[in-house]
Amino acid sequence: MRVIEKIEDVKALIKEQKSMGKTIGLVPTMGYLHQGHASLIEKCSQSNDFSVVSIFVNPIQFGANEDFGTYPRDIERDCGLAQAAGADVIFAPSAEEMYPGGCGTFVEVQGVTEKLCGRSRPGHFRGVTTVVAKLFNIVEPDNAYFGQKDAQQAIVIKKMTRDLNMNVRIITCPIIREEDGLAMSSRNVYLNAEQRAAALVLSRSLFNARDMIQKGERSKHNIIEYLTRSISAERLADIDYISILDATGLEEIPMIEGQVLIAAAVKFGGTRLIDNIMVEV
Amino acid sequence: MRVIEKIEDVKALIKEQKSMGKTIGLVPTMGYLHQGHASLIEKCSQSNDFSVVSIFVNPIQFGANEDFGTYPRDIERDCGLAQAAGADVIFAPSAEEMYPGGCGTFVEVQGVTEKLCGRSRPGHFRGVTTVVAKLFNIVEPDNAYFGQKDAQQAIVIKKMTRDLNMNVRIITCPIIREEDGLAMSSRNVYLNAEQRAAALVLSRSLFNARDMIQKGERSKHNIIEYLTRSISAERLADIDYISILDATGLEEIPMIEGQVLIAAAVKFGGTRLIDNIMVEV
Repeated sequence: MRVIEKIEDVKALIKEQKSMGKTIGLVPTMGYLHQGHASLIEKCSQSNDFSVVSIFVNPIQFGANEDFGTYPRDIERDCGLAQAAGADVIFAPSAEEMYPGGCGTFVEVQGVTEKLCGRSRPGHFRGVTTVVAKLFNIVEPDNAYFGQKDAQQAIVIKKMTRDLNMNVRIITCPIIREEDGLAMSSRNVYLNAEQRAAALVLSRSLFNARDMIQKGERSKHNIIEYLTRSISAERLADIDYISILDATGLEEIPMIEGQVLIAAAVKFGGTRLIDNIMVEV
Repeated sequence: MRVIEKIEDVKALIKEQKSMGKTIGLVPTMGYLHQGHASLIEKCSQSNDFSVVSIFVNPIQFGANEDFGTYPRDIERDCGLAQAAGADVIFAPSAEEMYPGGCGTFVEVQGVTEKLCGRSRPGHFRGVTTVVAKLFNIVEPDNAYFGQKDAQQAIVIKKMTRDLNMNVRIITCPIIREEDGLAMSSRNVYLNAEQRAAALVLSRSLFNARDMIQKGERSKHNIIEYLTRSISAERLADIDYISILDATGLEEIPMIEGQVLIAAAVKFGGTRLIDNIMVEV
């Protein structure tokens, strides 16, 4: 498995692979890979002839007071995990390679970016869509893989590709969880033992909400009230948002009906975690 | 020569052409073609195996008080001209085909879009870059051709393709003028006889400015003063802007030096015309 740092080198490699008629899959990541990423890479390598994993901590998707500087990085461990999962090449450019002289052109999706994490992290999705558009142009994948953990991100990227007629199919893969339920995230490493234990309240409350719905609860108000109460009962939890929206377009819905996304962002100490469940009723 | 209205149809055709190893050229236009467009199409068909001319009056690049509704349209005449110039296919989608349910994702180039026409027409370049990004994804051209008449547009599009790593080469072709010097434009049809005669002051003044520079004038101030005086002397002329900038990045320059763009926008009656000259000193 090769590790490539230069855009021109990966473009040349992709051109070569395409000329042999191979299909290309891309898994865009910010590195510090875990089993969630591995599941994306495995799916990618099963469904494509040639699999590219990009590792790039994208500065323009972090706010000024966010964790760009401290975001965990371990490229060597990442290479081992990606290779084991079936990656053919890792594309790990520098910020200077991706944004020589800064970023002067942005791709901006409207509507679905303005709620949930978009409200808490202004500019975040513009940074995500811009870097993903660049990666799509660099790698020209037939298929690209994103995790359902970042549910809004997957919806935003699907909208971008549809709106801009991009020639790539977006595949969303299920959330991978620790045995105790915590959604896997590179940011979990920030948690100390006490916060790590407290963080379980997030997935546990979401699972309970799903149970309530499966037992017949249809009131959005009641579910949100339950989630707020349940999560707030944890002393270390600081709720950013709890939302129930239509799962395809993130529209407001009057009650639990159709494909529904229940999404939450909660801070434990300085660490902001997100999690979600989808329910179909 | 085929005329195609559906995105999926043109994508299928392009895929077929690419599978035969053919190179693809694209000339994006808003139709009502003239000899300026013809020169682009000729250049395109000389340099590519397969030439696509898009005809689309792009609603999102017009301001609320601009001429979207009245912009001249004549698809039949356009087809004749494009075919004679060497086009292999015309792609003429409807607004609904390009923006089903409206436009929800924008491509925005910063910096070079904020001056000249960008200042007079807020949102204009965002509309241009968005539709051109879509056309690039639909047609996947190796080469795309733009006229120097819209000098800022060509610079903005070059910046977009570079910033987003798009796999297309942008080729800028010279301004084509009427025999008396007026830069060809689809909007010239708006001019009545008196305005048409008055409009000559624009190109004539620009040519005179070039002569002044070639005779040794290096003061930006003097050239702008001359142009302002010369154009204002025409009763029907209403100056929008006259600017002298660096021709590659549209940066401000202290004096006439290097590759310089002298650009002007002037209204004659309700018709806003633009013209420019490049000078290298």
